[in-house]
Amino acid sequence: MSILENQDLAQYCLETALRAKEASALLALVSGAQKNSWLRESAKRLRAAEKEIIAANALDLAAAPQFGLTPAEVDRLKLDGKRIEGIASGLEQIAMLEDPIGRVIESTVRPNGLDIQKVRVPLGVVFFIYESRPNVTADAAAICVKSGNAVILRGGKEAAHSSRAIVEVMQDAALDYDIPPSAVQLVNTADRAAVGHFLKLNQYIDVAIPRGGEGLIRRVADEATMPVIKHFNGNCHVYVDRDADLDMAMSITVNSKCHRYGVCNAAESLVVHQDVADQFLPAIGAALIERGVEIRGDSTTQSLILKAKTATDEDFAAEYLGPIISVKVVESLDAAIRHINLYSSKHTESIITRNLAAAREFASRIDSSAVMINASTRFNDGGEFGLGAEIGISTDKFHARGPCGLEALTSYKYVVYGDGQIRS
Amino acid sequence: MSILENQDLAQYCLETALRAKEASALLALVSGAQKNSWLRESAKRLRAAEKEIIAANALDLAAAPQFGLTPAEVDRLKLDGKRIEGIASGLEQIAMLEDPIGRVIESTVRPNGLDIQKVRVPLGVVFFIYESRPNVTADAAAICVKSGNAVILRGGKEAAHSSRAIVEVMQDAALDYDIPPSAVQLVNTADRAAVGHFLKLNQYIDVAIPRGGEGLIRRVADEATMPVIKHFNGNCHVYVDRDADLDMAMSITVNSKCHRYGVCNAAESLVVHQDVADQFLPAIGAALIERGVEIRGDSTTQSLILKAKTATDEDFAAEYLGPIISVKVVESLDAAIRHINLYSSKHTESIITRNLAAAREFASRIDSSAVMINASTRFNDGGEFGLGAEIGISTDKFHARGPCGLEALTSYKYVVYGDGQIRS
Repeated sequence: MSILENQDLAQYCLETALRAKEASALLALVSGAQKNSWLRESAKRLRAAEKEIIAANALDLAAAPQFGLTPAEVDRLKLDGKRIEGIASGLEQIAMLEDPIGRVIESTVRPNGLDIQKVRVPLGVVFFIYESRPNVTADAAAICVKSGNAVILRGGKEAAHSSRAIVEVMQDAALDYDIPPSAVQLVNTADRAAVGHFLKLNQYIDVAIPRGGEGLIRRVADEATMPVIKHFNGNCHVYVDRDADLDMAMSITVNSKCHRYGVCNAAESLVVHQDVADQFLPAIGAALIERGVEIRGDSTTQSLILKAKTATDEDFAAEYLGPIISVKVVESLDAAIRHINLYSSKHTESIITRNLAAAREFASRIDSSAVMINASTRFNDGGEFGLGAEIGISTDKFHARGPCGLEALTSYKYVVYGDGQIRS
Repeated sequence: MSILENQDLAQYCLETALRAKEASALLALVSGAQKNSWLRESAKRLRAAEKEIIAANALDLAAAPQFGLTPAEVDRLKLDGKRIEGIASGLEQIAMLEDPIGRVIESTVRPNGLDIQKVRVPLGVVFFIYESRPNVTADAAAICVKSGNAVILRGGKEAAHSSRAIVEVMQDAALDYDIPPSAVQLVNTADRAAVGHFLKLNQYIDVAIPRGGEGLIRRVADEATMPVIKHFNGNCHVYVDRDADLDMAMSITVNSKCHRYGVCNAAESLVVHQDVADQFLPAIGAALIERGVEIRGDSTTQSLILKAKTATDEDFAAEYLGPIISVKVVESLDAAIRHINLYSSKHTESIITRNLAAAREFASRIDSSAVMINASTRFNDGGEFGLGAEIGISTDKFHARGPCGLEALTSYKYVVYGDGQIRS
């Protein structure tokens, strides 16, 4: 790329960010009703534009071989009438969520009569970088604007035509409801350098949200000059306590591990109290092996599950995203908690126990975004938590943790009503 | 510095951070009552150690000339019986604040019976870098530990002996209440390179909080690999609307500008609606000039206040922290909001108006941590807001905005109670 082209790219990114910032100021004047009408109108128009969207998608499908997509990836990329209906009804569901903006979160009246209200406000401009299916384009645009933010969408090049078709429909619908069309902008170039330019513009962009592989997230976290909501990996644990209902432990372990392998809230490690290991491990070993899961355990595990391989330190730290599980036998609840806090990625951990004190200790000492008590790790999810929609699952502690719905895209300001108060 | 010394320093910082991380895990087991007892015991012991603390402070005062401290800075550094009593009673007040940790912020029971609780938890380890009076050492230690965090305190070298004496008293008291003494650590070296080492340790430190001059804050923001709660400058505005009570506007403008000059919530700029400029500007001009305030205004201002100098763009952007104010006359509320959003540092802005629609529009469109309606900008303060104690005033939107009390030092986790639920 020539220097001139690079300057053009930097200029394009700057102008995109400036337009987003302007749109974000205008969004302060837009009511919840306008935003919801826009979402419903977008849904209607997406359905009406089914033919055009499928035609755009066909261009992406035709280009898929040149990007080296696997058949599974091609399948996820493909749009048909049913999937477009899914996207449209997703927008209608987001329209039905309660509007977080302008809500008074807390309020106090001070002795001097000042009425202090802590009011929820948008963050401003969101830069969303993702490597996903075209439906994420519509979802992310809807979640960001519903929470009062302008969004710059940087989707994968594999879905460029599909995403463009969806965004154009939503931008056209915006005009009917006085939503600034630049509230939703799709980055217009596949050049990877564009991401770097945007990540420097912290004067205009309030948060960067990468969603995709660890490489992408690490790059964004390293280069960003603005805050980042990160979704790193999920090395999730199931701990079977001495006081566990072992039937429940079986069903929750199998569900946490085998319900879906390639997801961040799948269990990657099983921790078992030594007092129930003799009884539990042979049974769960058989159940997992029957489902094609490879077991890698410590020496006690290997003595109780004959087919188990040896687990290394790397195994205990691994997010397999596949049919493998590491197994560790511990002598106490305390040892289980220490092991988990050492190796977990602070995503989701589950304890199976009937013992209230054990449940409470596990819940208070485990340092993860979600602690499940007698439930599958697979429930750590915006939909399952009732948030309605999520833009990702944060493994950070700062600002937003766990499933990030509308509220994760907001901040607050203090609005203080007085009648002439001055400080003495 | 030799390479060996630098390695020693890096090792010292790493060990300090590791001890803090361990202490933070142990703090999960400490009850609110223990923390409060520790704070009250620390207060008692600080009073009892008055003589030793004053002796340590004398060493700092003796070294003050070599650090080039001004007489005002020496005065702020000086500890006497009254100031030590102030520090002690500050700790007792923090002990009386409600404990934020473990509170259920929100909860839902899902249709499948899962009981989902969003529970407030500590952030973990706080790295606090400050250039302030010795009382900040005690305050910061108390606020961090009360909110369940371990803290690494990096104070100014000017107060090194005083801070050490205070921290030793608090560490000794910690032993009596099973608070890990490493919950409060004071960095043991004046070497500025130590800050750089700590800012790399994002594996152990969850947030960095710089408090001091803009140079310090910018350095920390640039170098930190963990999130930062920043407190940049305050270019605060008072806007006198067409519908203002002009007597109230006088008193609030004078208070916002003149109550204290060197503070971040002092007004640095006055914006006046043109319909009241003829009446208001000569009067406020006389009042400010009488108090020794220099006025820098636009052409209309200069025609109404004869002693006013010309305001440049730099003036409208300036945080003077002294007896100067910039003045701008605008043709509408919209122009006032645009001017303020363009030049303000997003700290505090005040509108004086009797008009409800104007107040609501100003509150919703002004993008600052606090919007005052008919009240002085000087009220944007943790104490005045009833937060009890503050570790700073954040000009960020992410995580914490405005005065940061205990809650700003917390995160949350989801604790989910089930009875065997699995995902189907």
